[in-house]
Amino acid sequence: MTKPKTIYLDYAAATPIDKRVRAAMEPYFSDNFYNPSATYLAGQKARAGLNEARAIIAGWLGARPGEIIFTAGATEANNLAVQGVMRQFPEAEVLVSAVEHESVLAPAGLLDCQRIPVDKQGIVELDKLESLVSDKTVLVSVMYVNNELGSLQPLNEISQILNKLSKSRKSRGNDRPLYLHADAAQAPNYLDLHVARLGVDFLSLNGGKIYGPKQSGILYIKSGSQLQPQILGGGQEWSYRSGTENIASAVGLAAALELAQSKRPDETPRLKALRDLFVAGLATKLPAATINGSAKHTVPHILSVTFAGVDNERLMMQLDEAGVMCAVGSACSASSQEPSHVLKAIGLSDAQARSTLRFSFGRGTTSADIQATLALLERFVPDM
Amino acid sequence: MTKPKTIYLDYAAATPIDKRVRAAMEPYFSDNFYNPSATYLAGQKARAGLNEARAIIAGWLGARPGEIIFTAGATEANNLAVQGVMRQFPEAEVLVSAVEHESVLAPAGLLDCQRIPVDKQGIVELDKLESLVSDKTVLVSVMYVNNELGSLQPLNEISQILNKLSKSRKSRGNDRPLYLHADAAQAPNYLDLHVARLGVDFLSLNGGKIYGPKQSGILYIKSGSQLQPQILGGGQEWSYRSGTENIASAVGLAAALELAQSKRPDETPRLKALRDLFVAGLATKLPAATINGSAKHTVPHILSVTFAGVDNERLMMQLDEAGVMCAVGSACSASSQEPSHVLKAIGLSDAQARSTLRFSFGRGTTSADIQATLALLERFVPDM
Repeated sequence: MTKPKTIYLDYAAATPIDKRVRAAMEPYFSDNFYNPSATYLAGQKARAGLNEARAIIAGWLGARPGEIIFTAGATEANNLAVQGVMRQFPEAEVLVSAVEHESVLAPAGLLDCQRIPVDKQGIVELDKLESLVSDKTVLVSVMYVNNELGSLQPLNEISQILNKLSKSRKSRGNDRPLYLHADAAQAPNYLDLHVARLGVDFLSLNGGKIYGPKQSGILYIKSGSQLQPQILGGGQEWSYRSGTENIASAVGLAAALELAQSKRPDETPRLKALRDLFVAGLATKLPAATINGSAKHTVPHILSVTFAGVDNERLMMQLDEAGVMCAVGSACSASSQEPSHVLKAIGLSDAQARSTLRFSFGRGTTSADIQATLALLERFVPDM
Repeated sequence: MTKPKTIYLDYAAATPIDKRVRAAMEPYFSDNFYNPSATYLAGQKARAGLNEARAIIAGWLGARPGEIIFTAGATEANNLAVQGVMRQFPEAEVLVSAVEHESVLAPAGLLDCQRIPVDKQGIVELDKLESLVSDKTVLVSVMYVNNELGSLQPLNEISQILNKLSKSRKSRGNDRPLYLHADAAQAPNYLDLHVARLGVDFLSLNGGKIYGPKQSGILYIKSGSQLQPQILGGGQEWSYRSGTENIASAVGLAAALELAQSKRPDETPRLKALRDLFVAGLATKLPAATINGSAKHTVPHILSVTFAGVDNERLMMQLDEAGVMCAVGSACSASSQEPSHVLKAIGLSDAQARSTLRFSFGRGTTSADIQATLALLERFVPDM
């Protein structure tokens, strides 16, 4: 028997580096390797590469280069946003959506924190959010795209609510800022990232999910925002994040973001069609399977499916053996024994959460992949 | 006029990635790119690469793999050691040598911190260190090799002093730990890294100074040490440092460390001869130039020279124009207007510090490079 072709349906967990990204990084490995803080010409040439990467990223965000801070991935960026703001306001409170990534929940959990509930589609309930904002709140962190469900959050509406509340607070003499942070790790391949249109004060990006280098990332910090660094030292990145710069990584992230945003108009409808094909196939072949999240407010590349009564670990392994890679919850918590906090937040029982798989699509995914996966699911999933 | 060959004498600031390191990283960019937290086979294969990198590094340190935490460079590792320990003991005190890197000084500066003075050679004064340790001290941070002077610190002797004081404290009912952390960023190319022989509880390494990838690094955390994470989230690295792992970088760091430690027996005497040649040449051609640091307790690749009365920025630029790259202080603080805290700590005046250059050598340095640099110095430096 020949080994079946491998079908990778876990693009939300990791993406291969695009060859154009690699090519952009290449000169900075062994040739233009100089320390950009060095004042001789070669150091300044290296710095020019870093500056250009920063300007490219700022351009796609509609931001100024000085508002872009390079980090080692979105986890660090999320920690910097949450811990960095809250260190400035030790008596204050942070609100996070109930479906945030662990890299927001965990640092927020060290602080005075409340969780904003979501509806059954995984979308933040705006009235509840509004009622949770107190005079002590300085930061609200809501992810742009949920990594397990694909659900989109109404960032601009949230931003308007916060602006209204902030104005009202100011009129009462409370001058505390009320910032909005969004973890946008899953967004750049399919969505607009313009920070003014989104209405965010902080935005985290992650190269490892957009065909860029792992542990590349940025935190957008809106000019004038108050934030303390977590990693101190040589004063790089305007002292927001010290450490000799990884220019290869920064340049790779910029190239990856440029590719992602350029391909967006084509990739979005292409993947939407694949997702629709998957959903339609499930309805025909496995009508008892249920789709989690929002049918309307979703990215095209993430699909969460509950196969009632089926052990998701076992099904994932059967699929893996047959050549299809997909995810049990998010990769970060794949080895955890706890059922997904995201699925629990949208009202799934422990048993339903343990019967749920995430399929996520990307540049290499074809309709043949979808059909083959559906055929395998039909074979492996018992009549529900 | 043809452009002169470039002579790079700033290896302490940055090193090019070795081609063998690049080759080791290669498979993890676009092929074995999977998320090592994924439970399907390809994810586990990626994890195997990460585990192997960790085991290689642990081997050179005489540590267990579970004691090696991957970080984005030494700056993050130093911050994790200092802030991570001190968060566990908020009422306690940290001691740092007066010549530490900014990535130790700056986080320590947020805390109850005292500086241990150094002698004129830049070496920690052991009696003063001993007298500074109080019942509140939990962490002493002393770098293995000073990055501006090359001076070696007597880590093992410091460790013995701390062990003695710790025992005495315990006998008086004070059970606080008394940890020793060493920033070893400049050490791996020339020195033994065995943590038990050094007597350290924490050790930071940096790939960017040993022909590995920039912002690769580790913190060695001796088993049983108490330390809180700075970057929280998915729980990677035993929750000491969350974020999807950068396996390419980890594998690159392991390959770089292996190369550095393997080449050590040859490179150490080779560079020592080059350093001696430089020192002898200065004595002949520029007898008024003075060498800072220790002639005996030094790494072979760093040479700090004061050219009394000469503006170091101007001399550095003249050399750069003639094709020789060297450093004004450390790269991290090269753009700072303040004279080097290291040079001040060994007793140099502001004026002397501003007349000092650092030359640092590496794998590409030859005796012809040294001779050419000496000839240029003779031309550019006025009779002092």
